[in-house]
Amino acid sequence: MRSTMQEAPLVITDLFRHGRAVYGDSEIVTLEESGSRRASFAEVAERAERLAAALKRLGIEAGDRVATFSWNVQEHFEAYMAVPCMGAVLHTLNFRLFPEQLAYIVNHAEDRVIIVHHTNLPLLAAVMDDLKTVEHVIVVGPDSGEVPHALAYEELLAAEEPGFAWPDLDERSAAAMCYTSGTTGNPKGVVYSHRSTYLHSLASQSGASFGLSERDRILPLMPMFHANAWGLPYSGWSVGADFLLPNRFAQAEPFCKFITDERATFAGAVPTVWNDVLRHAATNPVDLSSLRMIICGGSAVPRSLMEAFQERFGVPIIQAWGMTETSPLAAVSWPPKGSPADEEFTWRAKTGRIMAGVELRITGDDGAALPWDGESVGEIEARGPWITGEYYLDEAPDKFHDGWLRTGDVGSVDHKGFIQITDRAKDVIKSGGEWISSVELEGVLIGHPDVVEAAVIGVPDERWDERPLACIVAADRDACSFATLREFLGQSVAKWQLPERWAFIDEVPKTSVGKFDKKVLRARYAEGELEVTTI
Amino acid sequence: MRSTMQEAPLVITDLFRHGRAVYGDSEIVTLEESGSRRASFAEVAERAERLAAALKRLGIEAGDRVATFSWNVQEHFEAYMAVPCMGAVLHTLNFRLFPEQLAYIVNHAEDRVIIVHHTNLPLLAAVMDDLKTVEHVIVVGPDSGEVPHALAYEELLAAEEPGFAWPDLDERSAAAMCYTSGTTGNPKGVVYSHRSTYLHSLASQSGASFGLSERDRILPLMPMFHANAWGLPYSGWSVGADFLLPNRFAQAEPFCKFITDERATFAGAVPTVWNDVLRHAATNPVDLSSLRMIICGGSAVPRSLMEAFQERFGVPIIQAWGMTETSPLAAVSWPPKGSPADEEFTWRAKTGRIMAGVELRITGDDGAALPWDGESVGEIEARGPWITGEYYLDEAPDKFHDGWLRTGDVGSVDHKGFIQITDRAKDVIKSGGEWISSVELEGVLIGHPDVVEAAVIGVPDERWDERPLACIVAADRDACSFATLREFLGQSVAKWQLPERWAFIDEVPKTSVGKFDKKVLRARYAEGELEVTTI
Repeated sequence: MRSTMQEAPLVITDLFRHGRAVYGDSEIVTLEESGSRRASFAEVAERAERLAAALKRLGIEAGDRVATFSWNVQEHFEAYMAVPCMGAVLHTLNFRLFPEQLAYIVNHAEDRVIIVHHTNLPLLAAVMDDLKTVEHVIVVGPDSGEVPHALAYEELLAAEEPGFAWPDLDERSAAAMCYTSGTTGNPKGVVYSHRSTYLHSLASQSGASFGLSERDRILPLMPMFHANAWGLPYSGWSVGADFLLPNRFAQAEPFCKFITDERATFAGAVPTVWNDVLRHAATNPVDLSSLRMIICGGSAVPRSLMEAFQERFGVPIIQAWGMTETSPLAAVSWPPKGSPADEEFTWRAKTGRIMAGVELRITGDDGAALPWDGESVGEIEARGPWITGEYYLDEAPDKFHDGWLRTGDVGSVDHKGFIQITDRAKDVIKSGGEWISSVELEGVLIGHPDVVEAAVIGVPDERWDERPLACIVAADRDACSFATLREFLGQSVAKWQLPERWAFIDEVPKTSVGKFDKKVLRARYAEGELEVTTI
Repeated sequence: MRSTMQEAPLVITDLFRHGRAVYGDSEIVTLEESGSRRASFAEVAERAERLAAALKRLGIEAGDRVATFSWNVQEHFEAYMAVPCMGAVLHTLNFRLFPEQLAYIVNHAEDRVIIVHHTNLPLLAAVMDDLKTVEHVIVVGPDSGEVPHALAYEELLAAEEPGFAWPDLDERSAAAMCYTSGTTGNPKGVVYSHRSTYLHSLASQSGASFGLSERDRILPLMPMFHANAWGLPYSGWSVGADFLLPNRFAQAEPFCKFITDERATFAGAVPTVWNDVLRHAATNPVDLSSLRMIICGGSAVPRSLMEAFQERFGVPIIQAWGMTETSPLAAVSWPPKGSPADEEFTWRAKTGRIMAGVELRITGDDGAALPWDGESVGEIEARGPWITGEYYLDEAPDKFHDGWLRTGDVGSVDHKGFIQITDRAKDVIKSGGEWISSVELEGVLIGHPDVVEAAVIGVPDERWDERPLACIVAADRDACSFATLREFLGQSVAKWQLPERWAFIDEVPKTSVGKFDKKVLRARYAEGELEVTTI
């Protein structure tokens, strides 16, 4: 039996129109050298219409890829609206990639246009000769001298009229794409649909996830090129939340001031950013009292960081879990109702509680599903309407399993649906047949005042097959004792898991999106480049 | 270009599974004569599986209609889960309907099974002979003597095993149906799909609408047979909110005690219920401090009621707008951010702010769209994925307009997307070519302490074509002066809109779902049954 419901497609265009019609007075604020630059939703919407008209005039048609190469600024936001709504595909490029990776991605996606922030022109100029499909470069900002035949964003917009006729779209058509920054092999493309983005927007507004409303002022500190900007441009726009875009001023001092000045209520960033804020606040006056919550993800959030934020600022850091392949939101770590106060951080330190709309399972080595007992450890697999089922033009059968995405994260799930990631699949440490969680060891170590960063890797061991090696970035090596750190670790971790091998490093090598790149550390260890102390 | 996203259907089964797996400890509390009866989500889910197995054994197949005839109790909730998830169609029957309407609806929907609460057995027994398609009556509760061949709910469940194998379903297949209680013609059926219900659930969890989370304890005072229970069983279940079901104890005293005892955080009901609470609280101790918000709809919410609740209990009443045809949620009246405190109630007194996912337009007499200027008045039309596009097996071309639902509500929309309903289309008053809003006049009148209820209808007038007649239910007719009421009204309403004609009535006639039935009043006036005073 069929329903009597209307056949209304789930398209970003409807979210866009809604934000414009109902919340035209809400604002997008961009941090500039000279201070805050402001535009209302009504103005941004009109500029998005002009941008769509300009792109159409340049020959962009349905399904064509339009890339961005930009910081978090108003014009990037305009592209987030204009490109999908005109039926084209927004491809957000990570400007921290190595040049070869960048060229590979642009060529693989066959981007026809790149919208670039003027401060990123040198980076783009360096690879322009290798880009085979790019016909136009549109420059946001004053300077367009370094790339031949570049077009000025503002001139293009000024030449058009507002009132673009948005086309009717199929909800399953492509809206945006993003490449994963795999540490092995070529980057792989994920293509979001209008439907997946629409659903992800509604789901992330839920009181069970971000609880977004018009009263929010959202500060996305994570780059908007990263994982669809955590979906915030669409979820926040459709409820009329204001946006505070930090541009390239991502250092602790300017963005703390931005939070204070603009009364941000909601901010999102990776843990290292919040660590920087803590350090900055140790010697500077910082007022984050306007924030109702901070969403934190991208890597494990140390409990000590959450506790410090609660104590110093009274602001809850809530951990979220997801990845490019999951749009990205899949789990949010709100503590369960009725938890005693002293258990709250135990829950919040878990990776996240699975959200409605996402199905998860853990699979063991034999591919069979493991119970949700909080103990059984296996690879996390995900399924659902905003989870990718393949990579763009890239066979990757080892990344999928009977229609489920293999997330590459290893961990357990408990009977309340809380995930505890213990490692990336490629970083697991198996000692004498038992798992040791590098993520757990790192989370404890980072809580010690002498430790700036900590990465734990598995290294070969004759007796136990593998044992952990703790690589420490210290504030002051002379003042930092491995024996003390080992003892500190022993207060939270079982004795057999404590590393015998310790080494100082200058910094933890990271991928282009700031994740620990442990294969580099393992290679250094293998080549004898690390000075290892055994205790 | 297609996306790489998975093909995951939007089905209630996924919301059901999620609530069970992640929030198994949340609870459904039913108010009984003997006190609160409790069951965990895990228990309710297992019972839903047994119910599905029992229905299957009775021959229920995909698409078959299974009706309920019940108060808000745990077993009704179990049917809300079991019936759609097994692929059948939940048909919630209004037990306040006239017997002929009830029989019409059951026969029209071709219900094969009716699940009835034992206290409603006499009502059902009275029409059983007229029900042509009903094969089984399943009785919840001890008493099944009055209907031949009735089956006992608990016995059926006890005979089955848990672990029903839920089928894969098409997201556009029917999940539930509900008949509108039109005051003219036969009731008309609306059939919700899995997709529409799933989307409505996510949308109503949003911080822009109800902001539901696990920390909520939801008390639905409106009957669960009404408009899909405002979607709450699905939206609340999927975030793990507890439910407090008041059963047949819907009088102010027991349910105020229920709110207090069970620490409800969120309650929903029509305005008259909250008026009763106010009256009850005038002479009794009432503690509603656990409520974070009350959602109120079904008819216009008087500003005086919202103000009184805020003052007396510190609880915001938030108005919502929708109808059976809109699943039902379409607008929620949160005041815009930045509103000065003295404007807050002006905003909250509006009918609602359009929510993301719903498209609205106002059309004038010529069918053309009118501007959102807060002044232009026309019929409100709605479009979107949880709005009906037709009625079940019932041609009703006058109810639809170019793919839009004609809501039958007349009003304006302002530039912030706030709807102000001024009348039902069939109740409009047009005086000398100008609209007079009966809803507005009633909303002011109800704020006068001498007035218990007020209904304003249009009556023929030689000079102005139509003029308003105010029909007043007074607490004490001797103490109530029409001249005083007219003066009171004159403080808020333009002079030319003030009624000259006034009449006392014993009560406002109402439809089976409690809405004012003004055609009855107009008929009484036409037949000279009202004693009209002209001032």
